[in-house]
Amino acid sequence: MIHLNKVPDKAAIDVAANRIQHFIHKTPILTSRILNEATGANLFLKCENLQKAGAFKSRGAVNALFSLSEIELKKGVCTHSSGNHAAALARAAALRNTKAYIVMPENSPTVKVDAVKYYGGQISFCAPNLAARESTLKTIQLETGAIEIHPYNNFTIIAGQATAAREIFLQLDMEPDFIIAPVGGGGLLSGTALSANYFSGKTKVIAAEPKGADDAYRSFKAGEIIPSENPVTIADGLLTSLGSKTFPIIMEHVHRIFTVEEHSIVKAMKFIWERMKIVIEPSSAVAVAAVFENKAYFEHTNTALIISGGNCDLNKLPWLT
Amino acid sequence: MIHLNKVPDKAAIDVAANRIQHFIHKTPILTSRILNEATGANLFLKCENLQKAGAFKSRGAVNALFSLSEIELKKGVCTHSSGNHAAALARAAALRNTKAYIVMPENSPTVKVDAVKYYGGQISFCAPNLAARESTLKTIQLETGAIEIHPYNNFTIIAGQATAAREIFLQLDMEPDFIIAPVGGGGLLSGTALSANYFSGKTKVIAAEPKGADDAYRSFKAGEIIPSENPVTIADGLLTSLGSKTFPIIMEHVHRIFTVEEHSIVKAMKFIWERMKIVIEPSSAVAVAAVFENKAYFEHTNTALIISGGNCDLNKLPWLT
Repeated sequence: MIHLNKVPDKAAIDVAANRIQHFIHKTPILTSRILNEATGANLFLKCENLQKAGAFKSRGAVNALFSLSEIELKKGVCTHSSGNHAAALARAAALRNTKAYIVMPENSPTVKVDAVKYYGGQISFCAPNLAARESTLKTIQLETGAIEIHPYNNFTIIAGQATAAREIFLQLDMEPDFIIAPVGGGGLLSGTALSANYFSGKTKVIAAEPKGADDAYRSFKAGEIIPSENPVTIADGLLTSLGSKTFPIIMEHVHRIFTVEEHSIVKAMKFIWERMKIVIEPSSAVAVAAVFENKAYFEHTNTALIISGGNCDLNKLPWLT
Repeated sequence: MIHLNKVPDKAAIDVAANRIQHFIHKTPILTSRILNEATGANLFLKCENLQKAGAFKSRGAVNALFSLSEIELKKGVCTHSSGNHAAALARAAALRNTKAYIVMPENSPTVKVDAVKYYGGQISFCAPNLAARESTLKTIQLETGAIEIHPYNNFTIIAGQATAAREIFLQLDMEPDFIIAPVGGGGLLSGTALSANYFSGKTKVIAAEPKGADDAYRSFKAGEIIPSENPVTIADGLLTSLGSKTFPIIMEHVHRIFTVEEHSIVKAMKFIWERMKIVIEPSSAVAVAAVFENKAYFEHTNTALIISGGNCDLNKLPWLT
């Protein structure tokens, strides 16, 4: 098994980028004069909402699946997730011709359940709490022998997510002052921080987090993991707590964490849909909101934002409720 | 004045592409496995919704403004339009440092009025009928001496719109079997038909039109212009009738016109937002709906669709009413 057992080094991220290149999109970076005028910054949106399965999660999932041998893959892979990792893992498993067992809370949005089914994932529903998710996953593992692929607390996943920022440095003809990534469990953020460290001498990584789910902010300040307690935010991809593998990387390489208000998230989301004509999910809008809430900080800077995904329920738009 | 006075030839379209290149986006072509599976065709979406000012109209407007001399531009330009041409013309005029006088019906959507204002256009409101629009425009022309830039019945505009299809042939590594463009006044469609004729030996151009505004379909069948009467469709960019300059080009070079139902337009629009994460306006969805309604016709073909624009009111989504 060539799953990574330590913090990915530069070579591991290069390997990941090379390994996944034919199975993911090299997503475009979009810019908008109107957005720049409204914020006072030069913003570069790395559009992972246009990624396969609609989110950056495809990077980590494909890297994980393609780092396993055929023998290891024989009994499939499994995870618990109500979100984008579930669909990305189901898709990656299908690419390797193996099974993906996905534990989803029974109140998962139909659109997410449908995505997992579309890619051929085998869903087991459970009660909507962490204990039920973990025990259901344990049972499935014992029954099937499937390998667990954690959504973020896994160095191979982190190396995969790191390829998004690596691509930014290859696509832009200059090194941005900042890259902003949203933070939930910290897979994308820690990968981004590693790539900035390895591939730039200059770019600082900033995290954006909803105030209603600010465990990363509080953990970062305290220097130890403080788990999320009853987080409340429309950014449903950012409800999870930091992991033991992501937190140390974040402590070492992330420059700062900004928290943002719910109304800013909704406003930023609508702004991007309206002016840039792309569908971004609330978790992605958190990064945009961080710029709008801190205009003085980002003024005249070149700042890349990772637009993490575009999966949302078009029947329930937050500005219409 | 180097406004074109005859049907654009190949050179005129090359000139237009060269002239506008620094002032418009070379928009991406997006593909989607899910869309291809749902339709049975290989579809290539030319994303003019990501164009400057949110629509292909920027191509024609920039070409028109940059084909005029400084002396000709001194007194500004004018048009009547409630839609994308208005914003595109205001933007193009600002690029040439001249004024754009825009006559808009008083019931124009706020979002369209705001776009024209954003680009510095000078708006005159009038009663929402063609007679009022034309008489108000005439008055403004007499008062200001501004040059009228018709939204579609103008060969320089047609040459500009033709650059979208020209770009498709440069971007794709093969010639598609079909290009589908929506048809309203016929500026985009006639330009697309000319480009297919000049730059491909193979690609057939197909028009898509709402059944509730099927003047182009009826004109095409009759061989003479039959004006639109009380058109009813959510595709608000396609309400206009064909023009004397666009119709003959369409008669000569367009292969076929498909009309589509309103519910298909809404369904196609939501499908593209949901699966491809891009915001497209109803007029763009008409082209997508034409494929969904005629799956047997497009099965296994390589078909490019011109996604004409992405300007819509996010507070009034057609699948939520």
